Amino acid sequence: MDYARRRKRVLTQLAEQNLAGLLVTNHLHVRYLTGFTGEGFLLLAETPVLCTDRRYEVEAREQAPDCEVNCAENSHLSTLLTAALATGLPRLAFEPESLAFSQHQTLSEGLGERTLVPVPNLVSALRQHKEPEEVALIAQAAAIVDSVLADFLPSLTPGRSEKRLAWDFTEAILEAGAEDVGFTPIMASGPHSALPHATLTDRVLQEGDIVVVDVGAKVEGYCSDITRTLALGEPPPEFAERYRAVREAQRAAIAAAHVGKPLAELDQAARAVLTAAGMGEQFSHSLGHGVGLEVHEAPSVNRTSPAVLEVGHVVTIEPGVYFEGWGGIRLEDLFVVEESGLRQLTTAPQLPV
Amino acid sequence: MDYARRRKRVLTQLAEQNLAGLLVTNHLHVRYLTGFTGEGFLLLAETPVLCTDRRYEVEAREQAPDCEVNCAENSHLSTLLTAALATGLPRLAFEPESLAFSQHQTLSEGLGERTLVPVPNLVSALRQHKEPEEVALIAQAAAIVDSVLADFLPSLTPGRSEKRLAWDFTEAILEAGAEDVGFTPIMASGPHSALPHATLTDRVLQEGDIVVVDVGAKVEGYCSDITRTLALGEPPPEFAERYRAVREAQRAAIAAAHVGKPLAELDQAARAVLTAAGMGEQFSHSLGHGVGLEVHEAPSVNRTSPAVLEVGHVVTIEPGVYFEGWGGIRLEDLFVVEESGLRQLTTAPQLPV
Repeated sequence: MDYARRRKRVLTQLAEQNLAGLLVTNHLHVRYLTGFTGEGFLLLAETPVLCTDRRYEVEAREQAPDCEVNCAENSHLSTLLTAALATGLPRLAFEPESLAFSQHQTLSEGLGERTLVPVPNLVSALRQHKEPEEVALIAQAAAIVDSVLADFLPSLTPGRSEKRLAWDFTEAILEAGAEDVGFTPIMASGPHSALPHATLTDRVLQEGDIVVVDVGAKVEGYCSDITRTLALGEPPPEFAERYRAVREAQRAAIAAAHVGKPLAELDQAARAVLTAAGMGEQFSHSLGHGVGLEVHEAPSVNRTSPAVLEVGHVVTIEPGVYFEGWGGIRLEDLFVVEESGLRQLTTAPQLPV
Repeated sequence: MDYARRRKRVLTQLAEQNLAGLLVTNHLHVRYLTGFTGEGFLLLAETPVLCTDRRYEVEAREQAPDCEVNCAENSHLSTLLTAALATGLPRLAFEPESLAFSQHQTLSEGLGERTLVPVPNLVSALRQHKEPEEVALIAQAAAIVDSVLADFLPSLTPGRSEKRLAWDFTEAILEAGAEDVGFTPIMASGPHSALPHATLTDRVLQEGDIVVVDVGAKVEGYCSDITRTLALGEPPPEFAERYRAVREAQRAAIAAAHVGKPLAELDQAARAVLTAAGMGEQFSHSLGHGVGLEVHEAPSVNRTSPAVLEVGHVVTIEPGVYFEGWGGIRLEDLFVVEESGLRQLTTAPQLPV
C-alpha cells in the first residue's frame, strides 16, 4: 500500500481549506494512512507523528517507518496534543465523527489560542474508493470463504448447533489462510432465521430448518461478506417461492447497477420486486453497504442514500425477507464497481430452486 | 441481573444534579442498564426507551421487556433525538466520553432550546463495583480458562505456530463452555515475547523459546484475563532470575493490597521490586486494569491512578519485563476485592523456578 500517497491526498484536500494538519483519531484511518495496526492516534502534517505507547513502539517503527513515533507516558490523546502543539500550526483539523466530546474538550483546552476545525468524512470518503491492492485483498478474503462454503454448505445437516457451525466455519477459513473472520458468523437456524441480525445460540439444527449463513473472512485487515440461505430436507411451505423472489430482487438491483447510478435506486429496484411479491414490509433493512477495512462502511445502499455508484466502490447487494415464526431468506453478494460495471467477488452458488 | 435497580441508581445520581434523563450512547452501558446486547442507544428517563432498528427489534423486546423499544427508519441517533424530544425535559444529560463531536452537534441542533449537559463517568463508575452476579460470571470465565490451560500449557512444544496455538486455545475454551474468547489470544513466542502487546504471527515455536500466553474467556458478556510465561526446553540465560523477579513484583503488589489502598501504590510496590532488580525500565506498562464487560476497563492500576482499591473492584495484577532481542516475561492474575482483601480468581500454576 502506498501510505505516503494517501497522506499526500489528505494533505492536499486540507490545503484547499487552508489547513496543514489533521488529528486522526479513528484507528482505522490511522492504519489506512500509515500501515500501523496497533492502538494510537496520528498527527498528519508535513512530518506525520504516530502517537502510541511503549507496548506498540516496536510495531509502530516497523510498520510505519516513514512516521515519527511518539510514545508518551500518559494517554494517546495527551501525546497527540503534545505533537499538535509542536507543529506550531495555528489551525488544526480533526475528525468530528471520531473524536468524543470529552476528547475535544481536552484538546481545545490544551491547544489554547489555536483553533480546532471539524472536517467531516475526509478519510472515509477516500476509503470508499478502493485501490487495486485493496480490491485484491477483499477478493482474496471472498475467495477463501467461497472455497470453504463449497464444502461447508452441503455438509449442513441436523445435529450440530449454531455455535458449533460458526466454530467449524471459522476453523475452516483460518486453515484456508484467512487472518480472521470478517465478523462473528451468523448461522441463523429455524425461527432464528427470521432475525436479520441473529446472534449465535446453542440451538441444534433440525430437519426442515431454514438456515441463513452470513459469513466473511479478513485478509490483511480487509473483509469480505456473503450470505447464503438453504433449507435442511423438506423446506417449509412457500420457501421456494420466497427464495425466488429474493433472488429476483437481487438480480434486479444488479441489473440496475452502473457507474453513476444513484444508490437509492438500486435499493428501490430490489424493493420494487419484493413489494410486487407482497413482501415489501418483510424486507426490513437496507439493500447493502460498503466493505473494506470494516465489514460495514461507506457507502451505505439504502432508500435514502444520497450518493451514486462510483468506480472503486466495493458494496454488498443483499435483499432479504423475514417472517416471525416462519423464518427468513437473505442472499448477499459482494461486488467491486469498475468502469464497465459491477464485478462480482463472491461465487458460492445460490440454490437452484 | 437487576437492570431496573441499576437504572434507578443512575436516575438518583442524575436527580442530585437536577437532571431527569440521560442519553446513553456507550453500547456497553446500554447493555449494563437494560440487558439488550444489540446495537442501539438508550434514553434513560422515568420510562426507558431503547432506540434501535428493526434488525434488533425482536431481541430488544425479549432482552429488555421493561423498556419501550423504538425502531425508527433512520439512524439510532435520530431515534434517540425523537425520544429525547418526547420526554419534554428541558435538560438532558449525555455521556461525553461516548458521544462523538458530530453526534453532539446533531443532537444540539435537534434539541433546539433544550440543554445538553455532559455528565462524565457516571455509568462507568457504577460498573467498577461488580455485583455478585457479575463476579460469578467473571470467575466462571476465569475457571474455564484455568481448566483449559491445565492441558494447554504442558502441551506447548516446538512445531506449532502462534496462530495455530491461538486457534487451539480458542477451540478448547469454546468447547469448555465459554461464549467467546475475552480478546484475541496473545501467543508471543521467542523474540515476539519482547512485545508487551504482540499480535499473532505464523512464527513456529522453537526449542528454547520463551512463550507469553495472555488469554481470556467471555461468559455472558463478562471477560477474564490471565497471563503465563514459560520456556520450551532449555530457556535463555537469565530466564529463571528474571521470572523470579517478576513473580516477586507481583507478590509485592498483592501483599500491599487492601481495601482503601491507593492503586498507584500497588503499581509502585511492584515497580520497586523490578527497579531493585535492575529492570525498572523494562517494566514498560501499567501494573493492571479493571475487568468486566470489557477486558480493559476502569479502574486502571498505574503509577498515576488517583483511585483507591474498593470492594467490588475486579482487577489484574500483571507486572512484566521486556528485552528487545531476548524476550519478555509477564505474569498476570485476576482478583476481586472483598472486605477481607483480594480474592484470586485465576488459579493456573506459575512456574516453579
